[in-house]
Amino acid sequence: MSEHQISRFDVPDLADLPDDIRDTILAVQAKAGFVPNVFLALARRPAEFRAFFAFHDALMESDAGLSKAERELIVVATSARNHCLYCVVAHGAILRIRAKNPLLADQVATNPSKADLTERQRHIVEFALKVATQSADISDDDISAMRANGFTDDEIWDIGAIASLFALSNRYANFAGIRPNDEFYAMAR
Amino acid sequence: MSEHQISRFDVPDLADLPDDIRDTILAVQAKAGFVPNVFLALARRPAEFRAFFAFHDALMESDAGLSKAERELIVVATSARNHCLYCVVAHGAILRIRAKNPLLADQVATNPSKADLTERQRHIVEFALKVATQSADISDDDISAMRANGFTDDEIWDIGAIASLFALSNRYANFAGIRPNDEFYAMAR
Amino acid sequence: MSEHQISRFDVPDLADLPDDIRDTILAVQAKAGFVPNVFLALARRPAEFRAFFAFHDALMESDAGLSKAERELIVVATSARNHCLYCVVAHGAILRIRAKNPLLADQVATNPSKADLTERQRHIVEFALKVATQSADISDDDISAMRANGFTDDEIWDIGAIASLFALSNRYANFAGIRPNDEFYAMAR
Amino acid sequence: MSEHQISRFDVPDLADLPDDIRDTILAVQAKAGFVPNVFLALARRPAEFRAFFAFHDALMESDAGLSKAERELIVVATSARNHCLYCVVAHGAILRIRAKNPLLADQVATNPSKADLTERQRHIVEFALKVATQSADISDDDISAMRANGFTDDEIWDIGAIASLFALSNRYANFAGIRPNDEFYAMAR
Amino acid sequence: MSEHQISRFDVPDLADLPDDIRDTILAVQAKAGFVPNVFLALARRPAEFRAFFAFHDALMESDAGLSKAERELIVVATSARNHCLYCVVAHGAILRIRAKNPLLADQVATNPSKADLTERQRHIVEFALKVATQSADISDDDISAMRANGFTDDEIWDIGAIASLFALSNRYANFAGIRPNDEFYAMAR
Amino acid sequence: MSEHQISRFDVPDLADLPDDIRDTILAVQAKAGFVPNVFLALARRPAEFRAFFAFHDALMESDAGLSKAERELIVVATSARNHCLYCVVAHGAILRIRAKNPLLADQVATNPSKADLTERQRHIVEFALKVATQSADISDDDISAMRANGFTDDEIWDIGAIASLFALSNRYANFAGIRPNDEFYAMAR
Repeated sequence: MSEHQISRFDVPDLADLPDDIRDTILAVQAKAGFVPNVFLALARRPAEFRAFFAFHDALMESDAGLSKAERELIVVATSARNHCLYCVVAHGAILRIRAKNPLLADQVATNPSKADLTERQRHIVEFALKVATQSADISDDDISAMRANGFTDDEIWDIGAIASLFALSNRYANFAGIRPNDEFYAMAR
Repeated sequence: MSEHQISRFDVPDLADLPDDIRDTILAVQAKAGFVPNVFLALARRPAEFRAFFAFHDALMESDAGLSKAERELIVVATSARNHCLYCVVAHGAILRIRAKNPLLADQVATNPSKADLTERQRHIVEFALKVATQSADISDDDISAMRANGFTDDEIWDIGAIASLFALSNRYANFAGIRPNDEFYAMAR
Repeated sequence: MSEHQISRFDVPDLADLPDDIRDTILAVQAKAGFVPNVFLALARRPAEFRAFFAFHDALMESDAGLSKAERELIVVATSARNHCLYCVVAHGAILRIRAKNPLLADQVATNPSKADLTERQRHIVEFALKVATQSADISDDDISAMRANGFTDDEIWDIGAIASLFALSNRYANFAGIRPNDEFYAMAR
Repeated sequence: MSEHQISRFDVPDLADLPDDIRDTILAVQAKAGFVPNVFLALARRPAEFRAFFAFHDALMESDAGLSKAERELIVVATSARNHCLYCVVAHGAILRIRAKNPLLADQVATNPSKADLTERQRHIVEFALKVATQSADISDDDISAMRANGFTDDEIWDIGAIASLFALSNRYANFAGIRPNDEFYAMAR
Repeated sequence: MSEHQISRFDVPDLADLPDDIRDTILAVQAKAGFVPNVFLALARRPAEFRAFFAFHDALMESDAGLSKAERELIVVATSARNHCLYCVVAHGAILRIRAKNPLLADQVATNPSKADLTERQRHIVEFALKVATQSADISDDDISAMRANGFTDDEIWDIGAIASLFALSNRYANFAGIRPNDEFYAMAR
Repeated sequence: MSEHQISRFDVPDLADLPDDIRDTILAVQAKAGFVPNVFLALARRPAEFRAFFAFHDALMESDAGLSKAERELIVVATSARNHCLYCVVAHGAILRIRAKNPLLADQVATNPSKADLTERQRHIVEFALKVATQSADISDDDISAMRANGFTDDEIWDIGAIASLFALSNRYANFAGIRPNDEFYAMAR
């Protein structure tokens, strides 16, 4: 871990955390080999920690409809638009892994229109970016167009919901100044 | 209730919902006299419903540090910036009630700089709007300035967290087209 | 009346005003039960007062082509885009009265695309917002499209002219800091 | 006169106009040697014609406080920001005449920060541009700053009012597509 | 020459310049009757001076495909969008000369959509402005549309390349504060 | 090399190129192990190829004043703002090498304000971004502030010039759709 601060706000000691939160953190450490800083930064607020990861797992740990790689594609595209360093770096790594593609995350983060996307992926990214940046302008016609492009209502909802969740996540990481772990940068290159 | 659609997506029957979600909905109906449409619109996704209201209650149902009226002020100011009809109308009503002020919600929704705000309220709204619209630009200096203005770290976190949660909420309401109940418009005028 | 200032600039005494201006003010007070602050704020400049209300009455007090409710709809939509508290609150009240609809003003002020508008109203609002915000981009094609949507040249001109007049009015109210009378907020809810 | 259209809307024959409007037009023609197209384009609406030129003359034909050249400077700066071809070309010519400076209009229209302005002129232009483009953000501090820079309240009002009037004028010219007379381009070069 | 500074950075004496650069400057003076300030301002950096004018001449001194007037049209339209006083004034003069049209430069600089352009010129200007302001969004469809409008690949490249070169040129002139020579303003009116 | 197109425009055969251009390309291939696509894409225009690389080498291959790493920092920061995939990926690799830092390029590309920058680097990046995005607003005060921060006039010029050159380069790469070589992504991670 670098010597830089994890967050602009105090990070509690593991020993002082509620059991369920400490268990969650130890489990992710066992699996990943390190603790992603977002777990440590949110731990100061147990209720928000629990709600955030419940939300996250409900939307990101499913292959029903959207694949896990498609879900991460939404995260990287919208987080880059919001200039969220934590989310682009951490989820960029996960996208490289889940899409088995070492180039896609950097492409989508820099300029989605130049990324190597399938037609389906392009529709997903464009709808997600509209939710992220101009949700007030989403009309019935946008929904109809997605249906006409072959998306089910559950898939459309998932794209909108993931873009919404990372609108939250990007802002938390940005106001709290959560630093991405150095480990993420070189993963799955 | 007007004849207009509650949401662009199917709304499940109460009878088909998991018990905890149906109980939540019946409880809010008993208290408010009607069911705010966001409960019905989110019910199609029980996991997201539970995570959203857990998040909401953790941040909005507290008087520690920020008052409940100050919390609603953040919601109305940021939701107006995001042009979220549901959140402005529903939380505008709650703000009128909690602030015991029939003018404040319309003022803040239209132009926060012209609203009858105290110095403390003005700092809250300005920081919240920066989280809502340019979170990538929040610097250590912004946090220091809030501390110098007398805010505790927990208050600063709450402002950032509420602005973040309604970044999510506004986008859900906007992509799903959730309609505010007619009852909200005239409440506490 | 609240204890807040009517304007950032001095407001003359009624007794010191030219007769025609004092008569206008007394007439509106007799009719409305109070004097809308814009009359008092502009009275320091009799020539501008006369020109403004002559312009206003020429465009707003007619049912030829556009109905009076349609005219107010343009005012509320464009004034909200310009974040003019005075115009949104005052003309929001007038719109509720003229459209006999307690919801429409708040809907249009918050997000016109989510308002309960007829097709004709939607065309009016969209053209008005283009005049308000990107008039330099209005092309012959925009005019042709309005004609194809069934609008006469006089109706198109009226929409453009009302949006233009409130571009002026919003800026006067914003630079002078004209405060809407408290009476407007609850009218016709 | 070029063969191009004066306006997107019908222009009435001089013979069909109310006497006062025809007289105004003939007077300006006698003085300028040609009829500026805005007179012809607005003539289809006598009440708006009268209100507009009453407003114009109240604000532009005075040397009290702001000089006439300063008033034209406001018009050119704000009209360029609004990309109003008619106002930039016509008032650019008048500014060259009134400021006795053949360069100033092109400088201010292209980039006010690079124009040869005095300190006083720079304050005028910056306040006017804020009224033109972000009037909702004008605060008590902006007014205080202008006072501290030596401007009287009547001068501040005049700057705001002229910027507001040309917010209207630019939009009329843009939606109606009013073409500047060819004569203006080379005047006072 | 006016008494104003040519540049924010030191301008070398002619006598101190490398021979080829001094020769270039003397040649342009012999031809134009004065030395355009950009030559003097760039002379402090001989390598950049040589590269810039080599680039310029490769793109601007050709009539193959695009005419010289069309090339200048691109310069004026994009430089106005970038508020580059030097380029608008200097190339506005050249455009008046090359297009043999005293109105076109002011029209295009103020509002290209109101300029007297042919269909071909309008396509050129619109593509150039997209390169100037939103090049990241240029898609294969934009290129196909230009081909369908009758442009060769070499013409499309030229439009893109000229808009790119003046993206550079405008920024040099803006950061260095290069002042247009007074002589340009009245040329070819 | 991936099977994707190098450019939207034809790429000439090496054999058909002028000798100096073929030699340049063979030299870079010998040094890097592959030919960066920008060399192939620009080769269709020998005069622009020569001018571009002369410009590039004059500004990027020097350690006088600004270090080579500082120069690449400017390129990555401004190219990310312009969403230029080619420049971010290719110069991101060079920045990692020249700064001997595997994290810096991704940090600066995603959000410069969250990057691990020294005070001097932060001033460089902020001035460069102002040149890239709002050069028209650069004032004498910006230059004075840089001088006060310890930069020489030659360093300030270099920052402005590099930001200007990549304003050009980003637009070329974006309109021509130049694809970064796959080799760049994993270099120096």
